[in-house]
Amino acid sequence: MRYKITFSYEGTNFMGYQRQLGEGRTVQGEIEEALRILYKEEVEIHASGRTDKGVHARGQVAHFDLSLSLVPEKLCYALNRFLARDIRLYQAEIVGEDFHARKSAFGKHYSYKMYLGKKPPAIGYATFCPIVTFFSPEAFFLSLMPLLGRHDFQGFCGRGSSVKTYERTICAIALDVEEDWLTLHLVGNGFLRKMIRNIVGTALDMILNRRQEDALLTCLRERDRTKGGQTAPSEGLVLEEVFYTKEALLETMKSLKDLTFYQGQDNLS
Amino acid sequence: MRYKITFSYEGTNFMGYQRQLGEGRTVQGEIEEALRILYKEEVEIHASGRTDKGVHARGQVAHFDLSLSLVPEKLCYALNRFLARDIRLYQAEIVGEDFHARKSAFGKHYSYKMYLGKKPPAIGYATFCPIVTFFSPEAFFLSLMPLLGRHDFQGFCGRGSSVKTYERTICAIALDVEEDWLTLHLVGNGFLRKMIRNIVGTALDMILNRRQEDALLTCLRERDRTKGGQTAPSEGLVLEEVFYTKEALLETMKSLKDLTFYQGQDNLS
Repeated sequence: MRYKITFSYEGTNFMGYQRQLGEGRTVQGEIEEALRILYKEEVEIHASGRTDKGVHARGQVAHFDLSLSLVPEKLCYALNRFLARDIRLYQAEIVGEDFHARKSAFGKHYSYKMYLGKKPPAIGYATFCPIVTFFSPEAFFLSLMPLLGRHDFQGFCGRGSSVKTYERTICAIALDVEEDWLTLHLVGNGFLRKMIRNIVGTALDMILNRRQEDALLTCLRERDRTKGGQTAPSEGLVLEEVFYTKEALLETMKSLKDLTFYQGQDNLS
Repeated sequence: MRYKITFSYEGTNFMGYQRQLGEGRTVQGEIEEALRILYKEEVEIHASGRTDKGVHARGQVAHFDLSLSLVPEKLCYALNRFLARDIRLYQAEIVGEDFHARKSAFGKHYSYKMYLGKKPPAIGYATFCPIVTFFSPEAFFLSLMPLLGRHDFQGFCGRGSSVKTYERTICAIALDVEEDWLTLHLVGNGFLRKMIRNIVGTALDMILNRRQEDALLTCLRERDRTKGGQTAPSEGLVLEEVFYTKEALLETMKSLKDLTFYQGQDNLS
């Protein structure tokens, strides 16, 4: 029986999503341990992708096979009872053997949350990136426009990545501005390792005059990570959704149009 | 030179506000250490009151004496540079020798945040109390009405408290309801140890039928902690403000009137 689970986690107290040898909690490790103890089976869960240490997820998706036939709602309930409060399952479904959380994914939606002001809150400090030097949200948004569409994003890819191609499509960029809070939304068919944090970091460096004003474009064109800026802190990043149909992706693009700034392209080539 | 500082902290990774022997971070300890390293003086800071392990503050106040004469804004800036992100100073002022953060306090405002629904978020899990069994927010609010005014609150006082009197005045109770979020606000001239968490826990036990429906009143009248319910979890509680004038307290009471439910008494006897 193959199960698909949709879950959320606060990355603060995890070494990252992926199970690893040695000390430290991981999201994968905790869910696998819960399944092992609850159902007496060694289960390996397969997520849509890893998230790094400190990165959060609101709608991560994984699949796993279990010989038991369980009512999905009960599986969900049992896991939530077992897991710590920084991992929450929102949905469990029985899916066909052809479903694969990573390979079947059609696209993803990430957000990056920033506080732009003099008095960043202490409460919730691990869920956003504080920026004390003011900049224009619109200029920040506009600086990202060259990234829309299909590009080779090697210049924004973190080290240690083993991918066949660095080509990815970003089909929507939106920026929500609410008082001192800025939340950047990116929707695409997939994202490379640390790609969003490197994009945000480079855009911030540009707008705060720590990099030349064409750094983003240079980094994109020359596919050279050293031309880009800092890697923005992990705590601002949230994996919002994983899409398994084009319709689901378009639905999210539509909802992002209501935000303060939005630019998208419906042609998802 | 006496300084008054207003600061916020997320209590999650602290053993509590108060400095203590042995391991573990404390808010007092971190600020004192920062002052010692920055200004080479052994300083003891005096807060308006302690908060327990896991309890947050948005507007805690403390005073301390330093032989140096510093520009308050610079003190604030230097401390924020030094401190971890889960403590943030919002204001520093030079005050007279007669100012005492605890003794001069006229009143306090606390909030208690609850999530009432089936899908508590994982992100920010340490900043609210999740409740999965539905209840009526209005009934919850109304159950607290007997507490308004001046009473002996010994029945809601935690152990290990050494106070001269258990009499306190609660002058406003408000409940903010926004979708699945409930935030209870209490304003009073002072609160006993664990008083708010014991009040919230008893009210929750009543409304979820784990205690008799008059448990809160019985606990209040008989001044007997064993008649009350559980102590609600620390993570929902926030010290919002400390008032040093009647006007400041009245200002907050006025602003709370806009919330979903409000009851107050302006006669602060």
